[in-house]
Amino acid sequence: MGKTIVIIGLGLIGGSMAMALRGFEDSRLVGVDTDPETLRFAVERGAVDEAAENAETVLGRADLVFLCLRPEGIIRFMEKYAGQFRSGAVVTDVAGIKGAIVAAARCLPDTVEFIGGHPMAGRETSGIQNADGRLFRGAHYIVTPSEKTTPSALALMERIARHIGCRDLVQTKPEEHDEIIAYTSQVMHVMAVAICDDPVLFRCRGFEGGSFRDCTRVAALDVPLWTELFSLNAGALTGVLSRLEGSLKAYREALETGDRESLSEKLRYSSDRKRHMNLE
Amino acid sequence: MGKTIVIIGLGLIGGSMAMALRGFEDSRLVGVDTDPETLRFAVERGAVDEAAENAETVLGRADLVFLCLRPEGIIRFMEKYAGQFRSGAVVTDVAGIKGAIVAAARCLPDTVEFIGGHPMAGRETSGIQNADGRLFRGAHYIVTPSEKTTPSALALMERIARHIGCRDLVQTKPEEHDEIIAYTSQVMHVMAVAICDDPVLFRCRGFEGGSFRDCTRVAALDVPLWTELFSLNAGALTGVLSRLEGSLKAYREALETGDRESLSEKLRYSSDRKRHMNLE
Repeated sequence: MGKTIVIIGLGLIGGSMAMALRGFEDSRLVGVDTDPETLRFAVERGAVDEAAENAETVLGRADLVFLCLRPEGIIRFMEKYAGQFRSGAVVTDVAGIKGAIVAAARCLPDTVEFIGGHPMAGRETSGIQNADGRLFRGAHYIVTPSEKTTPSALALMERIARHIGCRDLVQTKPEEHDEIIAYTSQVMHVMAVAICDDPVLFRCRGFEGGSFRDCTRVAALDVPLWTELFSLNAGALTGVLSRLEGSLKAYREALETGDRESLSEKLRYSSDRKRHMNLE
Repeated sequence: MGKTIVIIGLGLIGGSMAMALRGFEDSRLVGVDTDPETLRFAVERGAVDEAAENAETVLGRADLVFLCLRPEGIIRFMEKYAGQFRSGAVVTDVAGIKGAIVAAARCLPDTVEFIGGHPMAGRETSGIQNADGRLFRGAHYIVTPSEKTTPSALALMERIARHIGCRDLVQTKPEEHDEIIAYTSQVMHVMAVAICDDPVLFRCRGFEGGSFRDCTRVAALDVPLWTELFSLNAGALTGVLSRLEGSLKAYREALETGDRESLSEKLRYSSDRKRHMNLE
């Protein structure tokens, strides 16, 4: 018999993780959620082998725990259940910020090994009804091992990333994760919502092309989740936003002066950077 | 025998248009380009039935002319060849701005019917080597008929839009086109290039997800083309940019004050607008 994997929180990500973990090394999947409807759905769909409303009843036999709540839910969970994890358990999470999570994980006893994780996948929907075992395919799985992380815990994360179809396992430090993610993910979401505040929005049907659909796709976001993600990374995010405002202003001024050569030079510079940073 | 359709400029759009027009009402396709290599490629691939380096030799027998140059190339072409279009010819273009084009088309004689057009499709590549007859599938085909536009010219554009696979033919005024396109297309391109100016760009491999790929996809743009498109629509575009800078600043300030309730309210407002403006 393989490991017992307990998934705390069966929302979009927790539910998808359960479905994606199916067949992983003969493990037994236990789902925990406060919503009985969610648990019934998870069992009926075969997402988990066992469902529990209360983490206390199952944490003691978990070899691996996936914390799939919102960031502050994860922090509160660790504080509340710190003493109830099985000795030798590996605990990981899926939150889109890592600094605050990794700091909070210091409340866990030394008998437990915590490794921060962020599988870079999501949807503009939430809940297990929208969960999909293929959600992580092709995504980067970022982890933030510390100097205490054991090779076996890291190897386990590698095997999980491969099993759920991720493109790779990327190792970084929590602070570096948060700084870069403010750029590659958070500011994309701020741009998407900010552009939807424009009064032209409701006149644009019939005039939208690929770039508009792509950019605004993520604007229908989960408000409580992104309020937490943005707030817990406000320093890095406001930095990126300031720089973006500056870049946009420079483009606007080049347009206002009517100086085509300077506009053309700016476009050459930026588009060359993009070509150089080509992402397959 | 059907109509003779002359396509001026066999770049990405002109070449794709030629390929997409294959089989349209038994018409004969004639391609004009100043580059002999492009003409040879077009003939070899069967994109056109006939190729010409000089528009003068073919304009006199064109029932329909597609102007597929850059915007200012289109304007110069109309000025130079105004007297050489066949009487009764329909002339249309594919430029992403319409005010300046439609204004310039006033130089054409009354015997010619001009109808501005903008099939909303593109790629981050250029040249006939990248042309694709499926480029326009699912795209809006915008046209700007005037009070002089005949029902038969409009019906012709309808049949063309259907033949090349567009989702619909959208009618609007040139000024409205330019104002809305500044929002749905141009500012998306400015955001894409502006975000690439950030110093974090070259550190972000391994941390990019769908939103980053989607938003920056269009940043590798055709510099001379977009310099013209932006410059010829500077008024509307700087307006959208100013408003976007204001929206981003408001989000940044909500983050800087640490006022979560106000941040959450803002996200609720913007994401509700997006949900309301859901684009299938």
